[in-house]
Amino acid sequence: MGMVGGGKDAFIGAIHRLAANMDGLIELCCGALSINPEIAKDSGKMLFLPEDRTYLTFDEMITKESQLPEDKRMDFVTIVTPNFAHFAPAMMAMDHGFHVVIEKPIAFTLDEAKQLKQKQAETGRILCLTHTYSGYPMVKQAKAMVREGAFGKIRKVWVEYPQGWLSKLSEREGNAQAAWRTDPKRSGKSGCMGDIGTHAAHLAEYVTGLKITHMCADLNAMVEGRLLDDDGNVLLKLENGATGVLMASQVAAGEENGIRIRVYGEKGGCEWYQHEPNTLLVKWLDAPAQILRAGANYPGRLSSFATHNCRTPGGHPEGYLEAFANIYRNFALTLSAQIDGTSTTPEMLDFPGVEDGIRGMAFIDNVVASAQSTEKWTAHIVE
Amino acid sequence: MGMVGGGKDAFIGAIHRLAANMDGLIELCCGALSINPEIAKDSGKMLFLPEDRTYLTFDEMITKESQLPEDKRMDFVTIVTPNFAHFAPAMMAMDHGFHVVIEKPIAFTLDEAKQLKQKQAETGRILCLTHTYSGYPMVKQAKAMVREGAFGKIRKVWVEYPQGWLSKLSEREGNAQAAWRTDPKRSGKSGCMGDIGTHAAHLAEYVTGLKITHMCADLNAMVEGRLLDDDGNVLLKLENGATGVLMASQVAAGEENGIRIRVYGEKGGCEWYQHEPNTLLVKWLDAPAQILRAGANYPGRLSSFATHNCRTPGGHPEGYLEAFANIYRNFALTLSAQIDGTSTTPEMLDFPGVEDGIRGMAFIDNVVASAQSTEKWTAHIVE
Amino acid sequence: MGMVGGGKDAFIGAIHRLAANMDGLIELCCGALSINPEIAKDSGKMLFLPEDRTYLTFDEMITKESQLPEDKRMDFVTIVTPNFAHFAPAMMAMDHGFHVVIEKPIAFTLDEAKQLKQKQAETGRILCLTHTYSGYPMVKQAKAMVREGAFGKIRKVWVEYPQGWLSKLSEREGNAQAAWRTDPKRSGKSGCMGDIGTHAAHLAEYVTGLKITHMCADLNAMVEGRLLDDDGNVLLKLENGATGVLMASQVAAGEENGIRIRVYGEKGGCEWYQHEPNTLLVKWLDAPAQILRAGANYPGRLSSFATHNCRTPGGHPEGYLEAFANIYRNFALTLSAQIDGTSTTPEMLDFPGVEDGIRGMAFIDNVVASAQSTEKWTAHIVE
Amino acid sequence: MGMVGGGKDAFIGAIHRLAANMDGLIELCCGALSINPEIAKDSGKMLFLPEDRTYLTFDEMITKESQLPEDKRMDFVTIVTPNFAHFAPAMMAMDHGFHVVIEKPIAFTLDEAKQLKQKQAETGRILCLTHTYSGYPMVKQAKAMVREGAFGKIRKVWVEYPQGWLSKLSEREGNAQAAWRTDPKRSGKSGCMGDIGTHAAHLAEYVTGLKITHMCADLNAMVEGRLLDDDGNVLLKLENGATGVLMASQVAAGEENGIRIRVYGEKGGCEWYQHEPNTLLVKWLDAPAQILRAGANYPGRLSSFATHNCRTPGGHPEGYLEAFANIYRNFALTLSAQIDGTSTTPEMLDFPGVEDGIRGMAFIDNVVASAQSTEKWTAHIVE
Repeated sequence: MGMVGGGKDAFIGAIHRLAANMDGLIELCCGALSINPEIAKDSGKMLFLPEDRTYLTFDEMITKESQLPEDKRMDFVTIVTPNFAHFAPAMMAMDHGFHVVIEKPIAFTLDEAKQLKQKQAETGRILCLTHTYSGYPMVKQAKAMVREGAFGKIRKVWVEYPQGWLSKLSEREGNAQAAWRTDPKRSGKSGCMGDIGTHAAHLAEYVTGLKITHMCADLNAMVEGRLLDDDGNVLLKLENGATGVLMASQVAAGEENGIRIRVYGEKGGCEWYQHEPNTLLVKWLDAPAQILRAGANYPGRLSSFATHNCRTPGGHPEGYLEAFANIYRNFALTLSAQIDGTSTTPEMLDFPGVEDGIRGMAFIDNVVASAQSTEKWTAHIVE
Repeated sequence: MGMVGGGKDAFIGAIHRLAANMDGLIELCCGALSINPEIAKDSGKMLFLPEDRTYLTFDEMITKESQLPEDKRMDFVTIVTPNFAHFAPAMMAMDHGFHVVIEKPIAFTLDEAKQLKQKQAETGRILCLTHTYSGYPMVKQAKAMVREGAFGKIRKVWVEYPQGWLSKLSEREGNAQAAWRTDPKRSGKSGCMGDIGTHAAHLAEYVTGLKITHMCADLNAMVEGRLLDDDGNVLLKLENGATGVLMASQVAAGEENGIRIRVYGEKGGCEWYQHEPNTLLVKWLDAPAQILRAGANYPGRLSSFATHNCRTPGGHPEGYLEAFANIYRNFALTLSAQIDGTSTTPEMLDFPGVEDGIRGMAFIDNVVASAQSTEKWTAHIVE
Repeated sequence: MGMVGGGKDAFIGAIHRLAANMDGLIELCCGALSINPEIAKDSGKMLFLPEDRTYLTFDEMITKESQLPEDKRMDFVTIVTPNFAHFAPAMMAMDHGFHVVIEKPIAFTLDEAKQLKQKQAETGRILCLTHTYSGYPMVKQAKAMVREGAFGKIRKVWVEYPQGWLSKLSEREGNAQAAWRTDPKRSGKSGCMGDIGTHAAHLAEYVTGLKITHMCADLNAMVEGRLLDDDGNVLLKLENGATGVLMASQVAAGEENGIRIRVYGEKGGCEWYQHEPNTLLVKWLDAPAQILRAGANYPGRLSSFATHNCRTPGGHPEGYLEAFANIYRNFALTLSAQIDGTSTTPEMLDFPGVEDGIRGMAFIDNVVASAQSTEKWTAHIVE
Repeated sequence: MGMVGGGKDAFIGAIHRLAANMDGLIELCCGALSINPEIAKDSGKMLFLPEDRTYLTFDEMITKESQLPEDKRMDFVTIVTPNFAHFAPAMMAMDHGFHVVIEKPIAFTLDEAKQLKQKQAETGRILCLTHTYSGYPMVKQAKAMVREGAFGKIRKVWVEYPQGWLSKLSEREGNAQAAWRTDPKRSGKSGCMGDIGTHAAHLAEYVTGLKITHMCADLNAMVEGRLLDDDGNVLLKLENGATGVLMASQVAAGEENGIRIRVYGEKGGCEWYQHEPNTLLVKWLDAPAQILRAGANYPGRLSSFATHNCRTPGGHPEGYLEAFANIYRNFALTLSAQIDGTSTTPEMLDFPGVEDGIRGMAFIDNVVASAQSTEKWTAHIVE
């Protein structure tokens, strides 16, 4: 694995390294860790990278790695730069034969995302997008139960993602995270919806197996002086007549990272909350609710999609890093299978990819368009 | 207290009697308990009413009671009939000098509600509307904290009210509750929004102290064959730039009666959930969350509006009946003060009245209008 | 109902009146509300008692009421005085033909309790003891599931009752509640175990249907200067080889009234916590846990012992007062049946009585003896 | 890192590898992974170990590794064999200059533990014992708050560890885990208390900073035919007059791994539950309870001992593997500091060691002695 971005003090880069490292399947072997050469070098040292594989630009990294013997060079590139700097290294990596893992959102614009899709098709590379929350085993359990019809036809989905960390104008107070995430030039045309609304939309579609078809959005910059939305509420129509609400906020003061989804069908529903991620609350119209718990030792009780993504038996809580690592692990298993010519399983193939990335970019476009419209409904057109 | 409606097997009539009875301030002395004379008589017997005060119609009850000596007659009329039958007895009662308590919604139409307001103004009677959820002590605590500025300027409110009991077409399967509540002739122009959406809207305005100014509604009858909405999601704009979402459903399979409100301001917020009603979760931007608990013994810790509405010390849970009873108790205390010429306190005056009823009826009108509109925003005009 | 004790400012008297009053089956008609004549009179006035039935002593009350015509006099006496003053009015009441309700503990000594039992047998009166916690519907559900063998043979019970209100030497700081409850002359030979440990022991035996046979107690006065135990931990042996632990404390700083019971059998177990009393968490060895919820509308899902004690449908929380009221209601239903000569049901007969009172007094004796012994096990001999 | 034990299918070996691997500080370089040569080889292959460092016995591993050049050989040995096979490799490893990490319990007997201590003193090696639960950041937060006097003098501790997985006689049904853990020859003189009671005792002493001085134990084999205790309840006396209860069970049917601790002092207390490990519930005598949450971004809110052990910001849950990894990370940081000659911090030195191991072995001895005694109290003598 070669990493683009993620120098010291970068939040998400460290998370990617931990996640990739967790299962012993992936090793960081090189990096272009910062556009600041000092930071790039220091970060490489800190991460025990050899000096000659501590690159100063992604261009240099991809070029030089592709010149190494096949068994020495990195297998894939992980891109953890700010949103505007995803596209170029991803394109170049695939062009040079490398697979790619991209921190979400996949790109800066929908058009870029579509180009990435085309490039992937041309090159046959694997593209993995780290929509973390679909990596949790109990999210996969929810999806499996919906798919198997446990709840009957799905009627409703409520998905919410409250955070409070942008309750003040922190981008003017030296908070680097806040600075780039609220800056249209680096973050894109949406703040809150681009950053966390896309996670919520992905989760809703992932669990229900239904596509969002229409949106009615109210986006706001609640903090005076902010350039992008920091809060938004969106009515949803989904396929097959289901409806929903998506709420995301970065000014829900006192909230941490409370992504939660509730799905209801004709016969029951389920609820998952990231702060207690090892529990899936399952509700039934005609019977008491049940508490399903994650655990590698519950093969008869849980779907294989859930148990495949558990490392520990019930009662040994796994968390965010493990969910993240599941994405890397499934990507790595799929990659190994491709390299070894062995067969893949549906469980290992269940990680987000370029289609999810495109839907995410289209979501940003369409939710912003809806917010600007006086019409109630805006179609969520992706192609 | 004389009761109109609420014969045996009626759900809400029994609740009203329990609530009115709880604190020993109110006694049921007569009733016109059913339009079916047999049920009216049987119910009177069951409730130990004297035969000569077991009336067959509200007309008879009000007429005859008003002819009794002042110290023998009922003080007020409680109206617990289906929605379409609130107006006539309420008008007649006030005309004959009786105060009234009305189960929500106050009337069948906004116009009726406005006539009730005018009648109240003319007659000087007290009109109490049983919007139960604002009777909970920790809801009053939330309101008090907002009012005192604990959370700074309010930015967001999320209010939700999921029920699952109409997940099937129960109105065709002999469920009497379902039958009248989904029947436009008896329930009005909205089902779910009229029945429980109004509670949610009232709660949002009560806690935040802000009026809803605009709505964007998506209402649906999710169960095929149903005549009224059984599910709806509404974007809200409130005064002072606050925004919100109101979600109400009667097809959230597996949910009981999960009304919940979350409010966020600049400095923090709070969350209240009816299934654990003695807890108010208070969240702070810059400090750990706190668990505030109901209790008559927490005068320094809670607002006087909360402690006034607690009967027990902390750790002795009170519930729905006590919340309901708080409305009756405050109404009765206010009535007693008026009769005795003593002074009232802000705490005892804090029960819902005709203005809340009018806003509720307008909410139904406007939310239905919004649902039918292709425009995004519909103003919530009340007058 | 005539009340002995419970003048204004008395905590438990007010609770008894609320509970007795709740269901409209019982009316307070007279009282000897305080040994202080001024308080007795004021309290009577406050409670709308006629002056001639506001008595100054229980002796006077019982004597004079028994001289009234049968249909005018009180049906039963409720005794809510401090522990040392339960016995005399209870004996006298039964001697004069009145039934009795007694706040727990039943008496000051085991010997008194046994005399009460004998008196009850002689007079055929009904004696009801208000062990509140067994009045909760979900406690009755737990008992029913155990009795029906849902969990297999019971192996373990953990019961705990943490309070924090005696964390300081409040009895020296003008707290009247603290003063009598920590005073051996008024409270008896045990403080914490007598006051709340008895509740825990009753709950353990009630739910499991097993008698405690041996105890190993460690009792302590954790606050310097306190005369009675304020904290204790007790190992238990029960019938049929089950074991358990009983923990009770009044110095668990920050706890309110957190009585909780957990029972485990061969196939599963259950957990009930008074702060969320409408939920019974049911755990299974071979299946996911279930959340059983109280509700009058769950006749197929819950035992008849649970639904009989619910007033509201699921999702309308009932609490401590309703649990208390259930004891009064079942007592009143049983009394009515006796008066009317109609038949009783097992559900209405399920309220605590003299046997529970005797076991409670023996528990106090034996737990104190165990605490003073250097032997590990002390038999819990009741007769 | 060289591993002894932990071949494929061994539960705890895989956990150790994940934990050691997580932070990129430690690499598995060799192993003697099973006493079965086939399994040893297969496991080595599975873990990408070079063939020449896949050893068949710990003796071979330690001997051969010590003959490698200093910069090639392993730095330390991790021992994850069943209890009876901890001592020999640990002694030999230290004798050959290697540091050791040992899965708990440290040894098979107290005497062995004492020999390990002496060996450690002689050789100056670092000995780390993986008492996982003290690796959780919010457990460290609890300890820090106690140490800083936030709760005043500690009066009480309740620690419990319910599991249900031995509710049946699984050791006779082909469950290998059950087989060795209930076998006195492989597990030692206690089953439940040795396996999980020691965790509970360690947690109690770790958080309170107080040593257990006396115990009064009731241990039982609740499942017929079982050779060791599978359930136990223990009264505790601790230093400074504190008291407590320790409950551990492997027959609490339906429980997973529910270790929980509650501590109470004069001014408040706290509660931590492993199933929601990122929360510490803090209770105050004179103020509302607080919900403290783990998070690397809460330096002002949490103790440095907590934040040092968080990898993610608040709301990104960490779990069991991270707690385990914290022990390895602190051990590795301490080891690096020793190797590099840099200074250690109190935070990195906070991992369990030989003293904890000795106290654990003595706990097993003394709790079994207490269970066999008819005396109430047995002193917890360690030396």
